[in-house]
Amino acid sequence: MFNKIKRILIGPPLKNEAIQGEKYGVLWGLPILASDAISSVAYAIEEILLALIPVLAFASYHYMLLICGMILSLLVILVFSYSQTIEKYPNGGGAFVVASDNLGRTAGVTAGAALAVDYILTVAVSVSSGVEQLTSAFTVLKPYTVPICVGLVLLLMLGNLRGLRESSRIFGMPTYAFILGIIVMIFAGFIKIKSGYVPDTPSIKATGTVSMFLILRAFSNGCSALTGVEAVSNAVPNFKEPSVKNAKKVLFLLGIFVVITFSGVATLVSMYHIVPGNSAVIIQLAEKIFGRNFAFYYVTVTTFIILIIASNTAYAGFPLLMSVMAKSEYVPRRLGMRGDRLSYSNGIVTLSVVAIALIVIFKARVKSLIGLYAIGVFISFTLSQTGMFKKWHKEKGKSRKAKAAINGIGAIATLAVVVIISFTKFSEGAWAVIIVLPIAVWLMLQIKKHYEAVADQLRINEEDIGTDEIRGNYNNIRVIVPIESVNRSSVQALRYAQSISKNVVAFNVSIDEEGAAKVKRKYDMLNISIPLVVQYSPYRQIVEPLLKFIDSEEYNYKKGEIITVILPQFIVTKNWHQILHNRTRVFVEKQLLKYKHIVVATMPYQLTR
Amino acid sequence: MFNKIKRILIGPPLKNEAIQGEKYGVLWGLPILASDAISSVAYAIEEILLALIPVLAFASYHYMLLICGMILSLLVILVFSYSQTIEKYPNGGGAFVVASDNLGRTAGVTAGAALAVDYILTVAVSVSSGVEQLTSAFTVLKPYTVPICVGLVLLLMLGNLRGLRESSRIFGMPTYAFILGIIVMIFAGFIKIKSGYVPDTPSIKATGTVSMFLILRAFSNGCSALTGVEAVSNAVPNFKEPSVKNAKKVLFLLGIFVVITFSGVATLVSMYHIVPGNSAVIIQLAEKIFGRNFAFYYVTVTTFIILIIASNTAYAGFPLLMSVMAKSEYVPRRLGMRGDRLSYSNGIVTLSVVAIALIVIFKARVKSLIGLYAIGVFISFTLSQTGMFKKWHKEKGKSRKAKAAINGIGAIATLAVVVIISFTKFSEGAWAVIIVLPIAVWLMLQIKKHYEAVADQLRINEEDIGTDEIRGNYNNIRVIVPIESVNRSSVQALRYAQSISKNVVAFNVSIDEEGAAKVKRKYDMLNISIPLVVQYSPYRQIVEPLLKFIDSEEYNYKKGEIITVILPQFIVTKNWHQILHNRTRVFVEKQLLKYKHIVVATMPYQLTR
Repeated sequence: MFNKIKRILIGPPLKNEAIQGEKYGVLWGLPILASDAISSVAYAIEEILLALIPVLAFASYHYMLLICGMILSLLVILVFSYSQTIEKYPNGGGAFVVASDNLGRTAGVTAGAALAVDYILTVAVSVSSGVEQLTSAFTVLKPYTVPICVGLVLLLMLGNLRGLRESSRIFGMPTYAFILGIIVMIFAGFIKIKSGYVPDTPSIKATGTVSMFLILRAFSNGCSALTGVEAVSNAVPNFKEPSVKNAKKVLFLLGIFVVITFSGVATLVSMYHIVPGNSAVIIQLAEKIFGRNFAFYYVTVTTFIILIIASNTAYAGFPLLMSVMAKSEYVPRRLGMRGDRLSYSNGIVTLSVVAIALIVIFKARVKSLIGLYAIGVFISFTLSQTGMFKKWHKEKGKSRKAKAAINGIGAIATLAVVVIISFTKFSEGAWAVIIVLPIAVWLMLQIKKHYEAVADQLRINEEDIGTDEIRGNYNNIRVIVPIESVNRSSVQALRYAQSISKNVVAFNVSIDEEGAAKVKRKYDMLNISIPLVVQYSPYRQIVEPLLKFIDSEEYNYKKGEIITVILPQFIVTKNWHQILHNRTRVFVEKQLLKYKHIVVATMPYQLTR
Repeated sequence: MFNKIKRILIGPPLKNEAIQGEKYGVLWGLPILASDAISSVAYAIEEILLALIPVLAFASYHYMLLICGMILSLLVILVFSYSQTIEKYPNGGGAFVVASDNLGRTAGVTAGAALAVDYILTVAVSVSSGVEQLTSAFTVLKPYTVPICVGLVLLLMLGNLRGLRESSRIFGMPTYAFILGIIVMIFAGFIKIKSGYVPDTPSIKATGTVSMFLILRAFSNGCSALTGVEAVSNAVPNFKEPSVKNAKKVLFLLGIFVVITFSGVATLVSMYHIVPGNSAVIIQLAEKIFGRNFAFYYVTVTTFIILIIASNTAYAGFPLLMSVMAKSEYVPRRLGMRGDRLSYSNGIVTLSVVAIALIVIFKARVKSLIGLYAIGVFISFTLSQTGMFKKWHKEKGKSRKAKAAINGIGAIATLAVVVIISFTKFSEGAWAVIIVLPIAVWLMLQIKKHYEAVADQLRINEEDIGTDEIRGNYNNIRVIVPIESVNRSSVQALRYAQSISKNVVAFNVSIDEEGAAKVKRKYDMLNISIPLVVQYSPYRQIVEPLLKFIDSEEYNYKKGEIITVILPQFIVTKNWHQILHNRTRVFVEKQLLKYKHIVVATMPYQLTR
């Protein structure tokens, strides 16, 4: 039943070999990895203006263009820095791998944790902001904001569980459609101005004076546009061969598209005197340029869709990052396992669950979530660039100095952004990230420690080979068969027991004398040579009396002997029947396995109806 | 950790012998079993008036007294009928046992299911109505109605999980306090009238004419007062010896207290012209009689508390009913198991969970819940009385005719109530109960069928004793040890395997060639005589390749051979470490146990850090 539903939703399982087919080229890699960065044109300019307009009125446009210029310069630096990372790290992993490699364990884990936090926030913020646009257009939907967000996250989850290629198609088309719409809008907007159109000048009043803090906060808001740039370098192994070349192409194309759309839209917003308010900036711009015709609705719809789909960059990045960190044993190993459809299904589900939790806790309010956003990604940028800078210094080759300089500039610029964001957004939520991050890092280092300890204890050293501990038989296998009552299932277990050992005891726990007498009587009737021990359990337990019996003089357990406890278990024909029977066996097994000298075996007895 | 919290909340475990000490006498049995019936004085009269006042105005008091008279007559009939049941059925079980015994399986299960539904509703209705009173006094709490209700149910659950005696003390005191308060109020009320006090006459207008339907609906509302009468006969084995005598005493005392408080309060309500509205009837009455002094607050507070505690009757009845039905195998067996503290903990938890679900679904609105209420209990009354009637007819003895007559009258009266409630409350929710009940009955009969089928298949018949199926050894035990990698844990499992069988194979599933080669190389280094089979699994599975191998010609499995699959498992030192490791073993074990010829054994390897 459950399996059938699963198959319909995510498709039939794929073979390991199919992994080649699931990789993407430039055409589909671009939209899947760039949607986050490109979608930012739909909100980053608005966020900058929102911080400036109340204080500066029309002077805002001047500062806005200045800030956009700074952000795009940062973008160019990051594109060049990250293209160097792609080249040096064709196996992906991005900031986590680069920082681990060059700056050590803690720096690497910090970069990984910071990135992971930001991926989760990307999903929460993008979906919430997309739905915010939707519900301000259709106000009847407003009370259902949170359920709609949750539904969309679940849809994204399903799309991604289906696997890489199909999801790139599902999510790829709208990204191109959005880019196309924006470029057409930019051309149309410039032509309209050239042909003599003079936009209205709205009446706004400035209520304050410009301050450094104000400019920096506007800049911090705008920096959310740069999250997603690192996604490409993270995902290099997901590309078709030649993967490094393809990844670099996608990264540069991403940079070009962001620069064109961002600078174009920013210039038009300034020319058309758009004031953020009831309606989103980009929607207002489309209305002024096109009027309410098909082109306007096209921009509106593709903008809504791309905001939802922007989260898909996180769906590409987070599971891959987790799988890389799982291979390095900093996160639970199961995050590194591929599901039926070859996607890292545990990572996808984890991302969705945490994002949904955030959406529910913050009631899908973008304003509350945005404060937490962007700081994580810039921490990882800084660590990654610092790592690359150090790497070039260890290398030889002609252009290493120039290359080191590029990454060095990247490191300094992104570190500056980290400081600015921490400072200007501290009270808006950045403090929470600053608390969560060290905890996550500590936890990850603990996990690593545990895995190392386990590996250490399980390892067989060369000097052990040939010793008794590796080769020797156990000479005395003793068997205990706990029986609840005398029936076909328990008798079958006793038969098996006497087949593997000459030292077998049947063991019964009774809660009253009547029950004990009944079991004894029935057992005697069977006329089997195995002795039966009946114990009375005043606390209605099973494991404790059994362990007590093993320790008793009567049983005479000698150190080094292996005791096999054989649990009879009848197996029901239908799954729902299980709720009608006690899970005693599972519980007893779990308890007994804690003891070194006890092997727990289960003898199934199949029911037929 | 979990265990420590559990101990603090519900106390240390109790021995089986302690069960005698946990039983109650008349003094504490009365409040624990009667709180539901006695608390009805706080809402049943109000519910009757609410149905009458808008139509009849002052004529309502006349009809209200008439209806109260009918309800109290019904109560007297029920008390006598049920005292006969207690005598004949000293082992408890109430309606379920009586109906099963005399009217057959389906009637018994119907009575049981109807009663169970009503117990759950008792908790939901009483808690919601108590909190409704609380939140109308303290309006700031209104938005938290549902969480407060849920919290109170959880408190009741904890109290009851602690065990019988302690809970009777916790819940017993307030019942007596309430009875005392009401009796004092009745005396004070009559004295005040006698000494010449003339109450104000409020202005109310009648807007309709009296109709049969109206009177019957008011009567149906009032019948909620009679739920809880059956609790005593259900709980006979919970009484100290002589349990029959004690139970009968409690039943008659319950009847006397209800008649006194109910008739007293009803008469006063009519004398003082109380009109239900913003404030509860009983609170208004207390205010008019006492003024706002200590006595008034005493009545207010004890009324609130007893409404909450009324649900405790359900907590005494439901788990016991479930345990009796579990013994007869109509509900999952675990509902019949006593917990650490000797209470039927699974029943208590089930009751709480379902009641909480109802509270959340109906948002704790008493008006929505009351429609479902009372019909279940009257169905069980009818079946129980009919059963008793039939029983007397089969018996001999001098007074059997008189006794049959009492139960016969009870059966007819309660059947009439069932018809009246179904008719007058159908659209208010009774329809839901009428749908749920047959489904529950069908489900319970299915469960019984399943248990019978299992017992049938496990039973050893006399002719089987001595046959090979009961006594014979398995001559060929073959062993397969699936290993994930070559390590101390898997090697230990191999050593154990060769100790119990000469036919052992190590089995590895690899997802790629590289991994397969690595395992082979390491295994060869060990220089063990057990052959290693490596299989390639394109779908990253383990169980399927293993089963395929068993079916292969290479393995040459012969019918009747037992295969033991030994799973190596390292055991972590701390519980939280488990989330860092795959649950492959549990999954594989569950899958393999479905096959007749496979015994699954687990060889633990204890980690020390």
